[in-house]
Amino acid sequence: MAFDPTSHPHRRFNPLVDEHVLVSPHRTKRPWLGQTEALQTVIPPEYDPTCYLCPGNVRSGGQKNPNYKHTFTFVNDFSAILSGPSPEAPPPPHPMLTVQPVHGACDVIIFHPHHNSTLPQLDLSDIERVINEWTRIYLERGAQDGIKYVQIFENKGSMMGCSNAHPHGQVWSLSEVPTIPAKELASLKRYSLGGHASPEAPRGPQGRPCLLCEYAHTEVNLGQKDGRVVLQNEHWVALVPWWAVWPFEILLVPFHRHITSLDCLTDAERKTLAKMLSQITTRYDNLFQCSFAYSMGIHQRPVPASGASEHGDEVAHLHIHFNPPLLRSATVKKFLVGFELMAEPQRDLTPEQAAERLRNCSNHHYLGSDITAQTK
Amino acid sequence: MAFDPTSHPHRRFNPLVDEHVLVSPHRTKRPWLGQTEALQTVIPPEYDPTCYLCPGNVRSGGQKNPNYKHTFTFVNDFSAILSGPSPEAPPPPHPMLTVQPVHGACDVIIFHPHHNSTLPQLDLSDIERVINEWTRIYLERGAQDGIKYVQIFENKGSMMGCSNAHPHGQVWSLSEVPTIPAKELASLKRYSLGGHASPEAPRGPQGRPCLLCEYAHTEVNLGQKDGRVVLQNEHWVALVPWWAVWPFEILLVPFHRHITSLDCLTDAERKTLAKMLSQITTRYDNLFQCSFAYSMGIHQRPVPASGASEHGDEVAHLHIHFNPPLLRSATVKKFLVGFELMAEPQRDLTPEQAAERLRNCSNHHYLGSDITAQTK
Ligand SMILES: [Zn+2]
Ligand SMILES: [Zn+2]
Repeated sequence: MAFDPTSHPHRRFNPLVDEHVLVSPHRTKRPWLGQTEALQTVIPPEYDPTCYLCPGNVRSGGQKNPNYKHTFTFVNDFSAILSGPSPEAPPPPHPMLTVQPVHGACDVIIFHPHHNSTLPQLDLSDIERVINEWTRIYLERGAQDGIKYVQIFENKGSMMGCSNAHPHGQVWSLSEVPTIPAKELASLKRYSLGGHASPEAPRGPQGRPCLLCEYAHTEVNLGQKDGRVVLQNEHWVALVPWWAVWPFEILLVPFHRHITSLDCLTDAERKTLAKMLSQITTRYDNLFQCSFAYSMGIHQRPVPASGASEHGDEVAHLHIHFNPPLLRSATVKKFLVGFELMAEPQRDLTPEQAAERLRNCSNHHYLGSDITAQTK
Repeated sequence: MAFDPTSHPHRRFNPLVDEHVLVSPHRTKRPWLGQTEALQTVIPPEYDPTCYLCPGNVRSGGQKNPNYKHTFTFVNDFSAILSGPSPEAPPPPHPMLTVQPVHGACDVIIFHPHHNSTLPQLDLSDIERVINEWTRIYLERGAQDGIKYVQIFENKGSMMGCSNAHPHGQVWSLSEVPTIPAKELASLKRYSLGGHASPEAPRGPQGRPCLLCEYAHTEVNLGQKDGRVVLQNEHWVALVPWWAVWPFEILLVPFHRHITSLDCLTDAERKTLAKMLSQITTRYDNLFQCSFAYSMGIHQRPVPASGASEHGDEVAHLHIHFNPPLLRSATVKKFLVGFELMAEPQRDLTPEQAAERLRNCSNHHYLGSDITAQTK
């Protein structure tokens, strides 16, 4: 009997974070008996007088939002991290009980004045404005005293604990590099010192191998037919990674050259990124004909080269993770529990099957609209 | 200004898995605007004719359950891992695309014939029977050909994706050591070679330092008043670990001697473990007066000393993790999303505050019952 990755249980390795995922492809026909989520059928209005993110409304901290026309950024009224400097921690009673004071800032970035315009419903020019604002905050926060890391992310959907439907993202800047990006950076450094490099693939700094240049190049060249690529354009490829944990997880990465961070994008690369973000989120909505929930996060150089950037950080390769919880319909989500919390993430649907499903979705939003039809 | 861990943001280190958690204690007063869960108010019957786990009923695979009187174990009808040997994988098209075939087994263990008797509602003698059954499966599966790891766990509550209210757990045995236990084992090995050891703390094999002997000893000796200990008895301590991610996470660990695995427990230690499991789950139910959801998992020596056990595995120190999702009431759960998925887990409530809340709960179940009142 020959090994068949579409029917035999196996593990795949995630070289970015040095972890495995268990794949059980024979199990996709298992009946679903578990909890289902409420279907959100009400389309929100363009302006919601009770929304603390809509233009002109008052936030819980008491401040009034301006009548902003495009993006609007403010400091979170309930920031998880506060501005520094932090007082020094006292000596611990035991080395295992050491505290590490952290300072920084939590910013909220509203994508658009319209309460009901999520990323897939925005014009490409508006998405470009969001990218420009991410870049501005990355440069500004990343240059501040003691800031060692800037994490840009978006939580979309109540299923992801997002408390407000008004399209917005967050930027948390802090005085330490957090666990996951630190692991990724360590992996990229290790790879640069001895990883496999295909002759035709782009390289990282000093002509060294780059894990993500190499991986993206490999996936693009394996061909789309039964691979993991969902979409690609001149500069970017969106794929369901070999090691995906979430059913319809997507990794979006530039594949023609090593790009450390948002501030290094050319105008053309920014434009094609906007298009990619629009098309990925549109396909996500189309997959189950719903406003698709996800956590999206940008990993790049911890801070810009001009900030408290460390030697070696230029091995970072800009990429965007989309982790969506939905599994088989608009109301059935994946639970990361039990074996997955105690031992190792596990999936039934293979990344190749997920990529095929997403490849078969349209770039035109299922709700239609003249705007989206014209600009994509 | 002096650093105050109850009001200043900081990070804590988890030495078991080599990761940090971000603690934002100033933020516990943040209003909750997010999704809430449905409150389960119907108390299930003692026997449910539609339940595939109740005695005498037919499972989805077509088999009929016997009229079992205590525990009952069977192979999962939709196992994520299948029996071996697996066929060998073909050579990968790229080193990053290597598959690792996995074989093993997924067992389901029903705790009790009563459809509505969760752990806190069982007699201590019935909980002991569950422990004995866990031990039996660990010894049996762990001795099978090619099995390198046995993971015992329980998913409780629909909030944890559990599709059946009938109290049961699972045991997944496989031909590789999964990511998280492999990390813990590596940490325990590292610690044994150079970790801090208090003069009075128990030691691991060859008199070497043991991370968990040392940690449990330290917590017990810091005293309960404003520490992290929830409960302790002759052999076991239950505490909210310094590095807890889940709001009311508990680590249950033997603190008087180094115990590698369930099969090494004395009769007395098994009896006090049953009592601990009863008291922890009772306090959990009492905390928000609901059937408290959690994922529970047992970490121990990957397989018994008699199985395919590797040299050095005796550094493993038996412990049980409880990861419950509830945050501030029976209907508000914690979401691990956004920053936590992309960067690092984060919590508002401190482990010390959580421990205090759990210390203040009663050992008598809020639903009452002569049985629970008599035996605890
Ligand atoms: Zn990344
Ligand atoms: Zn453990």
